[in-house]
Amino acid sequence: MKKITVVGGGTGTFVVLSGLKNYPLDLAVIVSMTDSGGSTGKLRDQLGVLPPGDLRQCLVALSDAPILWRKLFLYRFEKGDFQGHNFGNLFLAALEKICNNYDEVIETASYVLQTKGKVIPVTHDKLHLTVEYQNGKKLTGEGLIDENITERSRIVNAYLTPSGQANKKAIDRIITSDFIVIGPGDLYTSIIPVFLVDGIKEAFKKTKAKIIFIMNLMTKAGQTTGYTALDHIKDLEQYLNKKIDFILINNSPIDKQILEFYQRHDEEKVIDNLDDKFYKIIREDIIDNKPIEKNKVDIVYRSILRHDSKKLAEVLNKIFYG
Amino acid sequence: MKKITVVGGGTGTFVVLSGLKNYPLDLAVIVSMTDSGGSTGKLRDQLGVLPPGDLRQCLVALSDAPILWRKLFLYRFEKGDFQGHNFGNLFLAALEKICNNYDEVIETASYVLQTKGKVIPVTHDKLHLTVEYQNGKKLTGEGLIDENITERSRIVNAYLTPSGQANKKAIDRIITSDFIVIGPGDLYTSIIPVFLVDGIKEAFKKTKAKIIFIMNLMTKAGQTTGYTALDHIKDLEQYLNKKIDFILINNSPIDKQILEFYQRHDEEKVIDNLDDKFYKIIREDIIDNKPIEKNKVDIVYRSILRHDSKKLAEVLNKIFYG
Repeated sequence: MKKITVVGGGTGTFVVLSGLKNYPLDLAVIVSMTDSGGSTGKLRDQLGVLPPGDLRQCLVALSDAPILWRKLFLYRFEKGDFQGHNFGNLFLAALEKICNNYDEVIETASYVLQTKGKVIPVTHDKLHLTVEYQNGKKLTGEGLIDENITERSRIVNAYLTPSGQANKKAIDRIITSDFIVIGPGDLYTSIIPVFLVDGIKEAFKKTKAKIIFIMNLMTKAGQTTGYTALDHIKDLEQYLNKKIDFILINNSPIDKQILEFYQRHDEEKVIDNLDDKFYKIIREDIIDNKPIEKNKVDIVYRSILRHDSKKLAEVLNKIFYG
Repeated sequence: MKKITVVGGGTGTFVVLSGLKNYPLDLAVIVSMTDSGGSTGKLRDQLGVLPPGDLRQCLVALSDAPILWRKLFLYRFEKGDFQGHNFGNLFLAALEKICNNYDEVIETASYVLQTKGKVIPVTHDKLHLTVEYQNGKKLTGEGLIDENITERSRIVNAYLTPSGQANKKAIDRIITSDFIVIGPGDLYTSIIPVFLVDGIKEAFKKTKAKIIFIMNLMTKAGQTTGYTALDHIKDLEQYLNKKIDFILINNSPIDKQILEFYQRHDEEKVIDNLDDKFYKIIREDIIDNKPIEKNKVDIVYRSILRHDSKKLAEVLNKIFYG
């Protein structure tokens, strides 16, 4: 069985994992651990736990449990003391308080959610992301960086405080994988933070795994404003310190109304300016054209335009076995 | 297999269930649903859910899952937005929000906790307990009644608002049981509220089950101040509208220091003034003399003097098979 490792943590990773879990693969996800916004940020501040949000999403994405469990983990309290908190976050936070170590937390959550694949936090250290913009501004905390959507200056540096030691399981997994799938996801708040952890770049240096990047569909306000596809790759390769082997990029037209919606939020379609001479580029229709079903539990609704988990999984499998 | 049904919901019920679950019995517990104090009360007020606290305790008492799960369900958040809330309560509250009915909530919780026995809420209706004291005072809300510890006037009436319809499963269970074990527990806040639900007294009238009452060790301030054993039985029989078949009462001496501790809180040893002519009375050493182990998860520490779950289960089994 091919050993496939997905890297990330946000909505994009959710979509990739949801698709890949239906294939006979040895699947794992290495999860970014710098989230500090919303429910996750409050739990970090108030209880001193590791950020549960991205782990929760990955656990649910890989879950083969009855739909009720997936619904429960994504359930968000609407009122009272717990307003805005996801049940899954509370589950991970409470488990962390009673378990001997974080491996036990993940094992227990994986057991109840019957995950088809391993969820690996990139580190067990509590750390925060800092980014420095070209205009001299500096922001610490992924939550704040995410909210800084009016920023148009380019991010020129990103680092963690403290730097953090990589989880040994993450290092082993990177080294022994056949393919590592990065993205799609917010470049500076979901993907690059994984590579900043001490030991991860070294693991990427050692591995013979082929690296696949799934290109974002749209730029992200305050983070990758004006970025072309090549800009994404350049930043990624800089922090990864390694060349990407395959780039998977959508070539299907995007609905004009959707583009206009994004433009109103200072976000644009990522222009495909990649040169086939330098990369293996796979251009396919990989977007989800289905109308949004509000009650469908397996999609985390943050963006109105998404990759399609089935289409992605099909194309990825062609790369794995091609 | 003997069909045994325990009735109650508080700490006493936890002790009885913890002991009985180790015997080959067809075991169930019918749980009082009027709690409105602490974490449970807040969840009722803020989320409009059924009271989860007593159900949580019964589920954990019957749990055959690894100790981690029992610890998790009893885990109480110490800080932040969730201060004072048990994880198990949040679990039941979130489940109630996503399940189609409360049976599904109980089934799901029972599945994850691997309960050896059925947990049956006496009703699925949201209701509150009112008591009227001899001095004319009236209190609504189990939480308030529990807190009214300086009250020395006798409770002369208790009723529910709304009256509430009994869960059909509770009625069936009562009718088809071989033995029904009541108590120990706070007479007016853990036990009598079960009999007040519409349909329960009728079920007790129909059943051929033998009724066993485990007599409380101590009086309860504000609820049964000055009560003898016979006072307990009289009140119980009044609300149950039926005679108790067996009374199990401790005959082992209680440590003087412990008695003094209780006296400082206006609570005294329940005097055994029961007459063997009128009841089958089993007098045994059924108290727990072990020093309190603070970290032992299976005991819920509210009272410093407790029945012993093993001793209770042994004596009960002699009654079941005697």
